[in-house]
Amino acid sequence: MGKSKVLIIGGTGYMGKRLVKASLAQGHETYVMQRPDTEIGVDIDKVETLISFKKQGAHLVPASFEDYKSLVEAVKLVDIVICAVSGVHIRSHSILLQLKLVEAIKEAGNVKRYIPSEFGMDAEKMKNAMEPGKVTFDDKMVVRKAIEEAGIPFTYVSANCIAAYWLGGLCQFGKILPPRDHVIIHGDGNLKGIYVNEDDIATYTIKTIDDPRTLNKTIYICPPENILSQREVVQKWEKLIGKELHKITLSKDDFLASKKALDFGQQVGLSHYHDILYEGFLTSLKIGDEDEASKLYPEVKYTTVEEYLEQYNTLTSLIRPSFSFPNHTDRQCKIFNTTPASPLLPEIASVTQTPIGRYPFPGAGGTKFSRGLTIHSIYYSDTPATNQMDLPSSEVIIHVSESKTNFLHPCSDQLLLFPDWRRRTACTVQGTQSCK
Amino acid sequence: MGKSKVLIIGGTGYMGKRLVKASLAQGHETYVMQRPDTEIGVDIDKVETLISFKKQGAHLVPASFEDYKSLVEAVKLVDIVICAVSGVHIRSHSILLQLKLVEAIKEAGNVKRYIPSEFGMDAEKMKNAMEPGKVTFDDKMVVRKAIEEAGIPFTYVSANCIAAYWLGGLCQFGKILPPRDHVIIHGDGNLKGIYVNEDDIATYTIKTIDDPRTLNKTIYICPPENILSQREVVQKWEKLIGKELHKITLSKDDFLASKKALDFGQQVGLSHYHDILYEGFLTSLKIGDEDEASKLYPEVKYTTVEEYLEQYNTLTSLIRPSFSFPNHTDRQCKIFNTTPASPLLPEIASVTQTPIGRYPFPGAGGTKFSRGLTIHSIYYSDTPATNQMDLPSSEVIIHVSESKTNFLHPCSDQLLLFPDWRRRTACTVQGTQSCK
Repeated sequence: MGKSKVLIIGGTGYMGKRLVKASLAQGHETYVMQRPDTEIGVDIDKVETLISFKKQGAHLVPASFEDYKSLVEAVKLVDIVICAVSGVHIRSHSILLQLKLVEAIKEAGNVKRYIPSEFGMDAEKMKNAMEPGKVTFDDKMVVRKAIEEAGIPFTYVSANCIAAYWLGGLCQFGKILPPRDHVIIHGDGNLKGIYVNEDDIATYTIKTIDDPRTLNKTIYICPPENILSQREVVQKWEKLIGKELHKITLSKDDFLASKKALDFGQQVGLSHYHDILYEGFLTSLKIGDEDEASKLYPEVKYTTVEEYLEQYNTLTSLIRPSFSFPNHTDRQCKIFNTTPASPLLPEIASVTQTPIGRYPFPGAGGTKFSRGLTIHSIYYSDTPATNQMDLPSSEVIIHVSESKTNFLHPCSDQLLLFPDWRRRTACTVQGTQSCK
Repeated sequence: MGKSKVLIIGGTGYMGKRLVKASLAQGHETYVMQRPDTEIGVDIDKVETLISFKKQGAHLVPASFEDYKSLVEAVKLVDIVICAVSGVHIRSHSILLQLKLVEAIKEAGNVKRYIPSEFGMDAEKMKNAMEPGKVTFDDKMVVRKAIEEAGIPFTYVSANCIAAYWLGGLCQFGKILPPRDHVIIHGDGNLKGIYVNEDDIATYTIKTIDDPRTLNKTIYICPPENILSQREVVQKWEKLIGKELHKITLSKDDFLASKKALDFGQQVGLSHYHDILYEGFLTSLKIGDEDEASKLYPEVKYTTVEEYLEQYNTLTSLIRPSFSFPNHTDRQCKIFNTTPASPLLPEIASVTQTPIGRYPFPGAGGTKFSRGLTIHSIYYSDTPATNQMDLPSSEVIIHVSESKTNFLHPCSDQLLLFPDWRRRTACTVQGTQSCK
């Protein structure tokens, strides 16, 4: 019996294109859904991707979620249907589109297995997931229910934490590039995550499609060397770059306090990070060998966390301030005008130590902050704190925000300094700008 | 003397990534600007592209347009700087960002040549370009002025019509996939365009950078076999697919009438198509051999229009209607609820022949259109027009729009039919939906 024919829906996406590549690489006749002109618009990147699939030997199948009959015709061409429409809210959330596909598969009657868009945490284990991120799992469960009620054979692939987001940012929420200076540690940083390279997710997924051992069940991808806490991930990066990072703890309260400043998609993401890094949804996950991809397919040489991080090793990052601040000529200040407790900040998390002193604001008498802005924190050079802002010529970063956490004065010429501040290097002044 | 070192700005973009590829392919030590975390955000596609550049041997240089010093440091590393920031409004318009780069290059003092983001029509020849598209050329001229006043050596690459937009859509504005049924011809369709494959634009650009013959001048890319009118492009496609397309003429007035329904970016694009297809800005372009890339570099086997179109040959397109229309059971109707004269319509351009008769609207008595909707045109099967809507069981498409052009009744149960209507095939009914 020859290899199954595979149809991939959402094939031009981040996961989808890897599924197309893996399907072709494993010798399957591969079909990719191509949406109509009206849905493609003038997206030349999408057309370029479709053309490249064709050049690699895939077949393009015109179909649309808006045209039910085309879905039926498309699935009739193949044995296996894999859907990779986005369930990552910051990109788009299309999980429930699959309900039409499920109907089409049921009507066509020929599909031997359907792999729905899962590829994350096991939706069935996420009944206590935090809102609004729970919507991801609720919607995936709706799709599963439809699949099972329709009697369609399936495999659900739970790939836990997608490496590009999690490892790229060293498990820091909202970041996808690893820092070289300091890192925000969520909670105590000791709860485990399970990180999988996207290419490996695709490889394992294609491995499952013809495998009777994976029929009608959930398969988990838990590469043993990739089950690590955030602190352990950070250690691996520190070893790679030969340098220790300054660690700033972000408590659960401060982390969640930032939620209201985020849009819906970001809140969904924040919920997922909360569930794993603060509630430890993955930390006690125990999966039998018969349900785990790296045990089922030991021939796949999965990418370890070190190997994944290695590719970021020369992606050094330039820290860019939001705007500069007029100051004494021998001191340069930079201000980040964002919410301090927001993990989306590039620089600084909230600091909760007791203040050791008050310092006149640089340029006092000539420099004011906007109403409602709170000076959140300041990084200064390694000089003992004094009662005068007699700092050597160096860079000083003042973090301004709208949060009142940790600071008691909204708008004044005085700053609160804390003892664990460190000097930030590699910053330059942007020129000056009056604070409105 | 070794090959020049090259820095590419905007390297992760559509043109930029091709420049990176061409620069590496032609043996140049290649640097790519990598923007800071704050600017990359959670764009995993961009990070993926940067990592892939690194794997191909490029160096990544952290820099930002918001950090002048970083620009100076970046350009100091190389001999040649090429900028490919977007000037295509529907993606983004960043042409004037280059002014900071020009300052940085001037300050650094080492750059042997700057290739600014041009790659389209020669901005200097576009003083009579239509608004608002003229902004593209005005901004490019501002940058040129800055370059020349700073005494920076340069080459401006004029690549005319980028193939992905122009050839992909057979020169139809707003389309990037070639049709198999009918095509909208702009004006008489006889004015010339000059179409260049993006990869060739990159190849030629890299060829120019060390070439004394191209110093301080504009180099045009006009591959002789790619200087064609829209009708000629259409003919090439028809030959490829072995089928003639039904041609619908879109007059300049109707084309321009659609402008008000478009957003700014789309209006810019419309202006460019107007300049070439209705005003013939390229049709009489005469370039000396010493200024033309395909003559300067005959060793480059550029992609002809046929070769470029060939890759679209199996990209068949599914036409999807906006919504269906309840009708007699033996007839299926589809309605496109968009502005008819808009070239962004997937289907139909305005029709200007004299009506030959009036027909009762299908389902008269039970079907109403929204207020303000005009029935624009109807495609029906090849049956002589009669005074009764006695159409055979086939598909009928009714195009509904808000334009009053060509039709005299805003909302009624009667249609105006024209003699040159043709049957549209390959459509399916979406089910039914009452018209509000």
